[in-house]
Amino acid sequence: MLTVTILGNNSALPAYSRNPTAQVLQTPEESFLIDCGEGTQVRLLQYKIKTSRISHIFISHLHGDHYFGLIALLSSMALQNRQQPIHLYAPAALEKLIQLHLEVAEATLSFPLHFHPLEKAGIIADTHSVNVHCFPMQHRIPCWGFVFSEKKNLRKIDPVRVQSYGVPPEYYHRLQLGEDYIHPKGTIVPNNELTIEAEPPRRYAYCGDTLYSEDILEHIHGVDLLYHETTYLKDFELKAANYFHSTTEQAGRIAQKSGAKRLLIGHFSSKYETLDCYLDETRAVFPATDLAIEGACFKV
Amino acid sequence: MLTVTILGNNSALPAYSRNPTAQVLQTPEESFLIDCGEGTQVRLLQYKIKTSRISHIFISHLHGDHYFGLIALLSSMALQNRQQPIHLYAPAALEKLIQLHLEVAEATLSFPLHFHPLEKAGIIADTHSVNVHCFPMQHRIPCWGFVFSEKKNLRKIDPVRVQSYGVPPEYYHRLQLGEDYIHPKGTIVPNNELTIEAEPPRRYAYCGDTLYSEDILEHIHGVDLLYHETTYLKDFELKAANYFHSTTEQAGRIAQKSGAKRLLIGHFSSKYETLDCYLDETRAVFPATDLAIEGACFKV
Repeated sequence: MLTVTILGNNSALPAYSRNPTAQVLQTPEESFLIDCGEGTQVRLLQYKIKTSRISHIFISHLHGDHYFGLIALLSSMALQNRQQPIHLYAPAALEKLIQLHLEVAEATLSFPLHFHPLEKAGIIADTHSVNVHCFPMQHRIPCWGFVFSEKKNLRKIDPVRVQSYGVPPEYYHRLQLGEDYIHPKGTIVPNNELTIEAEPPRRYAYCGDTLYSEDILEHIHGVDLLYHETTYLKDFELKAANYFHSTTEQAGRIAQKSGAKRLLIGHFSSKYETLDCYLDETRAVFPATDLAIEGACFKV
Repeated sequence: MLTVTILGNNSALPAYSRNPTAQVLQTPEESFLIDCGEGTQVRLLQYKIKTSRISHIFISHLHGDHYFGLIALLSSMALQNRQQPIHLYAPAALEKLIQLHLEVAEATLSFPLHFHPLEKAGIIADTHSVNVHCFPMQHRIPCWGFVFSEKKNLRKIDPVRVQSYGVPPEYYHRLQLGEDYIHPKGTIVPNNELTIEAEPPRRYAYCGDTLYSEDILEHIHGVDLLYHETTYLKDFELKAANYFHSTTEQAGRIAQKSGAKRLLIGHFSSKYETLDCYLDETRAVFPATDLAIEGACFKV
């Protein structure tokens, strides 16, 4: 199971208690942080998301509203004497910045930080529960989108059936992988008598700051949940293009053309106190749309 | 008149809704930001303190909990197209860090940023309303204390008297400076008939992260309000020394020995949810002590 929790949904300037971009994607075993605007560590505390479970961090680009909270988060992890490594995927220059921050504080991290510079489209991470694939977005500076593809889920044990057939617990993992149960006396119990179909693996696409661009469609085709930025309302298409951002209508069109099942929108402008206008305009193009409200948790 | 508003009072890690160090010192004409932990710009918004009035920023040292919010604040000022210059006083390495952050974002600031590296004790700023003087603290990395000395205040016009003597408004500023009023017909009205004594100029000392050190006494002698860090309770004197910090009792002793009129304590440990223990222990040594509670505004 994949869920995404929104930690920040505003663009550029903080406003109306909305914060800069950050999200955390979770599987039952792992947590992945996507972008890390200022104050992300406070939001993680607030929503009781354990930083100790975050093993991989993905930074789309080096505009401050997408990464200014990262160095503070890493510092706090070190102050808490974290030992488990962090894998960080980001544009190459971020590594130098982190080094310089540590240098001026005469500090070191307590854990290994494995830095993976984003350079070309392709698979960048292969973890216990997901594969992650990146692709270029069209922004003023180099910016990357990410698709998280869940690995095949294990079949679920039917607790009543395994007991009635007397299957020993050490056999359960083989059942989860789809094997039949062979009784010591030779009887074969077919797997589907003992387990329930696994949930199909899900895919989540994160498309941060970007112009409207159909080049991304091949990468996000058919995802279960697509996050796409909507900095501007539809009447500001020209302004959006000037600032390398997208409108509500454009995000809806990308969702439609990509065959995404559902759409999540965010990176709202500080001009708007309420967000209904974003939702209404996007739903007019793509009805299965939700606002990336801070604190909300979406099942992918 | 000088006031100081607390924007953050916690040490190192954010906890219990307390934030890392930041304060704003205000005169009727100017605002000075002292340290700038993560999220300072959000607190400025929350307490309705106009960033446009901040002309000078003072960073005591380059541990993240004292400056991680600075680059975000400067970026936001630039996004709002600020034109007025900022004077920034900080350890030299911060300039390189700011440059690198701007470089990776391919960004420039919309306003002149005058960087003043802190190198030796002495007067560092002479503004419309205050002089600022810095001196070294004893911390793990170079760290600076600051004393803000209000310039002589203007005498206050007595509105009833000036009217009854028929003093024209264009003469008021000369009265505020202490001159007598000379009537066109030659009569002299003594200044103290027309104005009220100005408030005596005040002095505020900011002593951020530091070991207990009597070397600072000469710099902060007789200030009206002293801020001194109290990371640890009195039973942790050894631990405080190991981490280059001070205890409640030590801050009280510094206030006492310096002849400060009042003491403000902060930089609390994330171990404590409530702060009464800090207050009680410090007041036992120096009764005129207050907690640097976030959002509170103290008249210097």
